[in-house]
Amino acid sequence: MSDIDILVSEVGPRDGLQSIDAVLPTDVKNRWISAQAEAGFSEIEVGSFVPPKVLPQMADTADVVKHAITVPGLNVAVLVPNLRGAENAIAAGAHKISIPFSVSETHSLKNVRRSHAQMFDEVRAIAERVADIEADKRPHFEAGLSTAFGCTIEGPVSEDLVLRSAETLMECGVAEVGLSDTTGYANPEQVKRLVRKVQGAVGKENITGVHLHNTRGLGLANALAAIEEGITTIDSSLGGIGGCPFAPGASGNIVTEDLVFMLEAMGLRTGVDIDKLLAVRNILSEALPDEPLYGFVPDAGVPKGFQEAQ
Amino acid sequence: MSDIDILVSEVGPRDGLQSIDAVLPTDVKNRWISAQAEAGFSEIEVGSFVPPKVLPQMADTADVVKHAITVPGLNVAVLVPNLRGAENAIAAGAHKISIPFSVSETHSLKNVRRSHAQMFDEVRAIAERVADIEADKRPHFEAGLSTAFGCTIEGPVSEDLVLRSAETLMECGVAEVGLSDTTGYANPEQVKRLVRKVQGAVGKENITGVHLHNTRGLGLANALAAIEEGITTIDSSLGGIGGCPFAPGASGNIVTEDLVFMLEAMGLRTGVDIDKLLAVRNILSEALPDEPLYGFVPDAGVPKGFQEAQ
Repeated sequence: MSDIDILVSEVGPRDGLQSIDAVLPTDVKNRWISAQAEAGFSEIEVGSFVPPKVLPQMADTADVVKHAITVPGLNVAVLVPNLRGAENAIAAGAHKISIPFSVSETHSLKNVRRSHAQMFDEVRAIAERVADIEADKRPHFEAGLSTAFGCTIEGPVSEDLVLRSAETLMECGVAEVGLSDTTGYANPEQVKRLVRKVQGAVGKENITGVHLHNTRGLGLANALAAIEEGITTIDSSLGGIGGCPFAPGASGNIVTEDLVFMLEAMGLRTGVDIDKLLAVRNILSEALPDEPLYGFVPDAGVPKGFQEAQ
Repeated sequence: MSDIDILVSEVGPRDGLQSIDAVLPTDVKNRWISAQAEAGFSEIEVGSFVPPKVLPQMADTADVVKHAITVPGLNVAVLVPNLRGAENAIAAGAHKISIPFSVSETHSLKNVRRSHAQMFDEVRAIAERVADIEADKRPHFEAGLSTAFGCTIEGPVSEDLVLRSAETLMECGVAEVGLSDTTGYANPEQVKRLVRKVQGAVGKENITGVHLHNTRGLGLANALAAIEEGITTIDSSLGGIGGCPFAPGASGNIVTEDLVFMLEAMGLRTGVDIDKLLAVRNILSEALPDEPLYGFVPDAGVPKGFQEAQ
């Protein structure tokens, strides 16, 4: 980690694939993950441990994790909705386990059918389970504060509630919290303000990452805002796939290719080789020929004379 | 101007239309300009005074200016490549005249067949012509430093040359200089650094605007960077049309709709009514049915509970 400035955490195999209908075969997922690690990525969220009936695209997550943990130098992250998912993640050998906590309780009840109190109980149970694992094998357990920037059902979400949720989640035993713009509502001013507030509430060392969407085109501007406040991990998705797009042309997640270009052009080292990254895209476009891939840099190329950050 | 924080200067009728093959009829241009002014825009670049053989899309600029100056409260801007164009702009009654000065001399020679020395002479001649006009009728004359962030022929462009060019242009008599990312090469760090340097060279009051492209998806992030350094005028184009796109999906100019949303969401007043702005888009899509219009906010809509800046 010391040779990079910003960690671009690839979430395409999880957030990307779970939002599209096609089921990517396990061997293609594995090739994708290996190729992207080879391009310089040190963290990839490879899947989620949810019931296969809910998300058949994620049914092979245990197998994908088993492959991913053999890739040298790769931090293998997964998403879990509950203790059962966490048990599966631990059994598979995942290095990092994230649970989404929806700050909008309406969204939480609708999405995972759990109140905030029930979610805190679940998080506490997972934290206790994780704490029982011996230190050198213990996965990093974090909670993502989803709908932190607004909710499609409730509208604006109370920033005080975001802070109190972050504090309670830390008390429940997570190692870290993150901020998620689940709905693509965030703007740069809000990102800065909320990052600063959460840093103040839980300590800078306990919020290092944000998960942003590009629903309204502000993804990179919001990432810039987060970085200016000291955030060092940004989630993004190859080809911008996923993230509940509203309409064609409106990609969901931040496009990994464009994010890496922005950071490297700014002199911020990501560890990523852009040419190799652009080649990884071919794996996706061949396997998902009907799925639109987004991004500007893949079309326009890098500027003449461009150099990656030294 | 005192009731807005950021001036979004619409350049679609000039930079947008000059980059597409279709020629928009004069009455459609006039309806577009009127409707966008009605939506709250106080400055629109309505065309350029170039030879009709070179850009037939701009052949009616004098007529468009004559209409635009009748629109209440609208600052009518035009682009001119030389003294002859400036004479036509003055005759038509334009309020603001911009001349592009390409910092890459290779680009200047190729684009307008003029060396830097020849361009400075041209700028000086226009400035003298403008100075002869009585003060209350005198148009604002500014120079845009194009290819300031890099050139597709030369590659990186010397920042010292940008500064020296800015200083010389001020000495030649322009009222103001602007920075243009003609090639879509800029990144936020570079925008900040170069804005600060030019502010240092010519004074903050003599650089208030930037013209950015979205070729590599960094348009809004770059706009944010510029605003953070005190820039108060950002050019953009309705539907992101224009700006020499490299490929489908790679829009050229910053999308006006997304920029206005970002600013208003951040609490920065633009004076624009977003609903009215989105309706203006229909004029373009009906008149140019084969031309792709870009933008995320037109598809996704504004967030639930969204309020414009007060």
